[in-house]
Amino acid sequence: MSEIIKPRLEVCLSPALLHLFDVKNSIVVIIDVLRATSTICTALHNGAAKVIPVATVEECVNIGRQLNAITAGERDGKIADGLLHGNSPFEYPEEFIAGKVLVLTTTNGTKLLHMAKDAVQIITGSFPNISAVCEYLISQGQPVILGCAAWKDRVNMEDTLFAGAVVSRIKAHFDVNCDSALAAETLYQSAGNDLFGFMKKASHYQRLARYGLEEDIRFCLTPDGANVLPVLRNGELVKEK
Amino acid sequence: MSEIIKPRLEVCLSPALLHLFDVKNSIVVIIDVLRATSTICTALHNGAAKVIPVATVEECVNIGRQLNAITAGERDGKIADGLLHGNSPFEYPEEFIAGKVLVLTTTNGTKLLHMAKDAVQIITGSFPNISAVCEYLISQGQPVILGCAAWKDRVNMEDTLFAGAVVSRIKAHFDVNCDSALAAETLYQSAGNDLFGFMKKASHYQRLARYGLEEDIRFCLTPDGANVLPVLRNGELVKEK
Repeated sequence: MSEIIKPRLEVCLSPALLHLFDVKNSIVVIIDVLRATSTICTALHNGAAKVIPVATVEECVNIGRQLNAITAGERDGKIADGLLHGNSPFEYPEEFIAGKVLVLTTTNGTKLLHMAKDAVQIITGSFPNISAVCEYLISQGQPVILGCAAWKDRVNMEDTLFAGAVVSRIKAHFDVNCDSALAAETLYQSAGNDLFGFMKKASHYQRLARYGLEEDIRFCLTPDGANVLPVLRNGELVKEK
Repeated sequence: MSEIIKPRLEVCLSPALLHLFDVKNSIVVIIDVLRATSTICTALHNGAAKVIPVATVEECVNIGRQLNAITAGERDGKIADGLLHGNSPFEYPEEFIAGKVLVLTTTNGTKLLHMAKDAVQIITGSFPNISAVCEYLISQGQPVILGCAAWKDRVNMEDTLFAGAVVSRIKAHFDVNCDSALAAETLYQSAGNDLFGFMKKASHYQRLARYGLEEDIRFCLTPDGANVLPVLRNGELVKEK
């Protein structure tokens, strides 16, 4: 009897655990739901030429000047000194971002992205582009690591929930033997149809809500509002044709 | 208006994340449900004088010889070469273990225990002693880290479920602002009254079931079968009076 060998699907809950996974032979999905990866797919969906993720404000300023690009990034919930824009997906409508280059500095997401640089392919995932992510992963037939950016290496709820949503959608196509994946999927199912309500108990919700960002959170938890696939090519995130 | 300040309660899902927590100012609960911490409380409940946790088989043999103690430990599901007993709680009934010293080597649990050595107090937790653990933590009024031993640093289901069970029981007495605690509690609640059934989906269940250890697993998931509190004093686990 022949048996189809399915590729592995695993969830890495924190960058501090990434060394336990076989990054080199996997597609890595960078997940930073609130709000970096939600904003990245939104900018590309609205016509940005590309998004360049950088680690520091200084790099952001320098590259932005070289490329005459839009610079964006926050530190502690405020636009960082020297940059012009923040992390909200609502800052990047088509009339503003179409055809432009966005240089974005985030702490958690960018760190993970650089750690995963040897992966077969890096893409970014979030609820606004969940369908594009799932279709791509199924189509590739390769091992997958769903990499949560977390919060200063601490496991967070929103990235875990997104990983669980992906597991729940694509698991039939993969070999899932990973308790983090089982945990993430179970959490996602527990939240049911009320991700926003469920997230109100989470630590990051409380941080962002203090800044008046409930609408951002609602968009970042809603499927397919900006359903394109950002892929990393030569250090730049571009929309997969 | 005066407000009672409650101590922090956090969950650390893997030893590889322990550096993110304030171990020095906390009580750390070492959790290695399948099966080290279940076996430790069982041996003490059945009258063992103490349990000495050691990292290597060699230490186990040497200390066992010096103290004329019972040596135990497994590697890859089998009693390690040079030792006489395994990790099963059923190997330590009263008629065998009463009054004796047990030297136990485990990989995941012992590693975490050594990493947490600067804690205010180290205790061990598992379903067979969950009530003793919860009563102790409430009585101390100090910050608590529920430390999952995990599996070679990978987050595992059984330790996470136990952490969630503890959070669910004691959270009213603590300040819980930790997404791992929220995740663990939600998972525990999802499992409902059928922890054993839920665990059948987990990776470690499948490893142990291959060795015919379903009865061990069932005991290790049942509350209060050996309800004593192991506390670490001078490197030895003894029953708290």
